[in-house]
Amino acid sequence: MKRLAPFALLLLTAQAPAPPPKPALAPSEIVAAAPASDWVAIAASDLLVMDLAPLGGKPRRIVMQLMPPPFSQGWVGNIRKLAAARWWDGTSVNRVQDNYVVQWGDATEKKALPAGLATVPESDYVTRIGRTSWEPLAVTIAKGSALHVSGPGEPPPPPPLDQLQDHYAPRVGIYVGWPTASAKNGFWPVHCYGMVGVGRGMSPETGSGAELYTVIGHAPRHLDRNIAVVGRVIEGIEHLSSLPRGTGGLGFYEKAEERVPIVSIRMGDEVAGLPAYQFLSTESDSFARYADARANRRDAFFIKPAGGADICNIPVPVRRKP
Amino acid sequence: MKRLAPFALLLLTAQAPAPPPKPALAPSEIVAAAPASDWVAIAASDLLVMDLAPLGGKPRRIVMQLMPPPFSQGWVGNIRKLAAARWWDGTSVNRVQDNYVVQWGDATEKKALPAGLATVPESDYVTRIGRTSWEPLAVTIAKGSALHVSGPGEPPPPPPLDQLQDHYAPRVGIYVGWPTASAKNGFWPVHCYGMVGVGRGMSPETGSGAELYTVIGHAPRHLDRNIAVVGRVIEGIEHLSSLPRGTGGLGFYEKAEERVPIVSIRMGDEVAGLPAYQFLSTESDSFARYADARANRRDAFFIKPAGGADICNIPVPVRRKP
Repeated sequence: MKRLAPFALLLLTAQAPAPPPKPALAPSEIVAAAPASDWVAIAASDLLVMDLAPLGGKPRRIVMQLMPPPFSQGWVGNIRKLAAARWWDGTSVNRVQDNYVVQWGDATEKKALPAGLATVPESDYVTRIGRTSWEPLAVTIAKGSALHVSGPGEPPPPPPLDQLQDHYAPRVGIYVGWPTASAKNGFWPVHCYGMVGVGRGMSPETGSGAELYTVIGHAPRHLDRNIAVVGRVIEGIEHLSSLPRGTGGLGFYEKAEERVPIVSIRMGDEVAGLPAYQFLSTESDSFARYADARANRRDAFFIKPAGGADICNIPVPVRRKP
Repeated sequence: MKRLAPFALLLLTAQAPAPPPKPALAPSEIVAAAPASDWVAIAASDLLVMDLAPLGGKPRRIVMQLMPPPFSQGWVGNIRKLAAARWWDGTSVNRVQDNYVVQWGDATEKKALPAGLATVPESDYVTRIGRTSWEPLAVTIAKGSALHVSGPGEPPPPPPLDQLQDHYAPRVGIYVGWPTASAKNGFWPVHCYGMVGVGRGMSPETGSGAELYTVIGHAPRHLDRNIAVVGRVIEGIEHLSSLPRGTGGLGFYEKAEERVPIVSIRMGDEVAGLPAYQFLSTESDSFARYADARANRRDAFFIKPAGGADICNIPVPVRRKP
C-alpha cells in the first residue's frame, strides 16, 4: 500500500487538467451589463459643448462635463459666464503638445473678459475638509481581490498600505464619479487623460477659466494642486487628441493658419438636440466589479492579472443614455 | 523682558518675507545642461526606421530604438529579420485607438512571414534573474528629496516603502535607459507612452513581431507581462499619435482607404543620412537630478511639488547628437 500511494498520486496529477474556468468578463462587458439603475444622469446644464470648425465636411463636437461641488467652483462659475457671454466663439485651439495637452482660448491674449468673473485663490486648488467627511472617498483596489468601495459615512477597513499607495498623494479614490486624491485635511481632482484644466500665468495668478486645456497623454499628475481641474471630456476627445502637434515651444502653433477655429462653446442646456449622457455610478456594484476587472484582467486575452491599477487607469464609464 | 519677547517675535514674523529662493531648474533645463559625457550613443543597428507615405508633401518618419538584452530578444531578433526581408514595405497602419495604441502590420493577415522566425515562449515576457543582479535596478524617487540611483553592484539603501511603490509590480526602476518593473525573481520592461510592443493572438501565441503597436495614451500597464515590449519610439511619434482614430472595434480602420501606407521599415544602419541619436545615461548625475525634478517640480511655474512620480512620468531623454 505504501508503494502504491505515490503511484495513485501520480495518476491524479497526470490526469488531464480541469478545463480552465470560463474567462471572466472584460471591463467593457461588465459596463455593458450594468443595470439602468446603476447609471447616473448628467444634467445638460453641467455640460460644456465645443464645436470646432468642421473638417472635410464632418462636424467636430467635443462634450465636456464640468466638475460638481465641492471642487473648483470659482472657476466653474466663470466658465458658465464665459459660455453665456459667447466669449469663446471665434477663438481657437492654439496649442497641441504631444503626450501632454491641447489648449484653447484667445490666441491674441487681448480679448476683454466679461464683467463679473471671480478671482479664485490658489487655496481653492484643494478642498479643505475634515477627517470625517474624507473617509467616504476611499475606493481601494485590492491586489487580486474585490474592490472595496466605502459607502457614505462608512469607514473603510484598514487595507494593506500598498493598496492605497499613490506616487503623488497620500491617498486616491473615486468620489461621486471623479478621480480624486486626498490628504488628511483636503482633497482635490487629479489630472487623468481627458481631464480639463484652467491655463494660468505665474503664481499667484490662477487663471480665469477663459484659457482651457485637456490632457491627451500620460497623466501629468505633477500638475495636481498646481492648476485648477474643472471637468473632463466625455465625448469627442479624438477631435482634439488627433490634431497636428504644434511645432513651437510647448506645442503652440507657430502660424495663425494652423490654429483650429472654435465656432462656439455653449452650456449643454443651450444646445438643441444634445443627447442625454450618464456616468456609471461609482458607488454601484457594477463599478466595483469594473474597477476590480481593470486592476485584475482575467478576460481571455490576459495571462497575468496586474493586481492593481493607478487611479487614471480606471476611467469612469460615460455613455449616451440608451 | 518676558513681556517683550513675544512682541519681538511678532516683529520678526511680521517682517516682509524673505525673497523666494531662485527657482530651481526645470527638468528640460537640467537635460539641456547635461555634459556631453552623460549622453550614451544609440547604435544605428539598434534603430528601426519607419517611413509612412508623406502627408501633404511632408515626410513622416518614425524612429524606434529596439530593446537591448536581456529583454525580449527573441522578438527583437525576428524584427531584425522582418526588416531585412523588407517584409513591412507596402503594409499599413491599421488601428488607432484613442488613449491606447497605434498598430501596424499586414491588414490582410495573410502575407507569408520570412523563414527562420523564432517562436518565443510566454515565459520570455519576464527576464529571470537572481536577487543579486536585480538590486542594481533600483531607482527610487524620494519624496521631497534627491533621487537615489544605485550603481551596479551597490545595494540601494532601504528607503521608505512608499518610495518604491508601484500599482502593477513590487518594484520599478530604470535600467540602463529603460523603464522596468521587477519582482524577486525577474524583471520586465513596462508599457509607458511611446513603448513599442508585439501584437498577438490568444495565449499561448506570443506574436512573431510582424504586428507591432505603440502606446499613445495613459500607460496601459495592465499589458505588462501579457505582451512583449520590444522598443520605444524616440522620434516622430506625433506622426502616429495624431492619426485619425479608427471607428471600428478596438480602433481598427473600417475602410481600406483609411489605412496609412507604410513605404518602408529598415534597420537604422541601412538608412542613409540618419542622424545619430543619444539617450541620457540613467546612471548619470544629470539623470538623477532630472528625475528628482520630474518628481519635485520646483521651477517657477509650480507652487506644490508632487513629492513623487510614477515610472512613466519620468521619460528617458533622447536627442539627436549635437
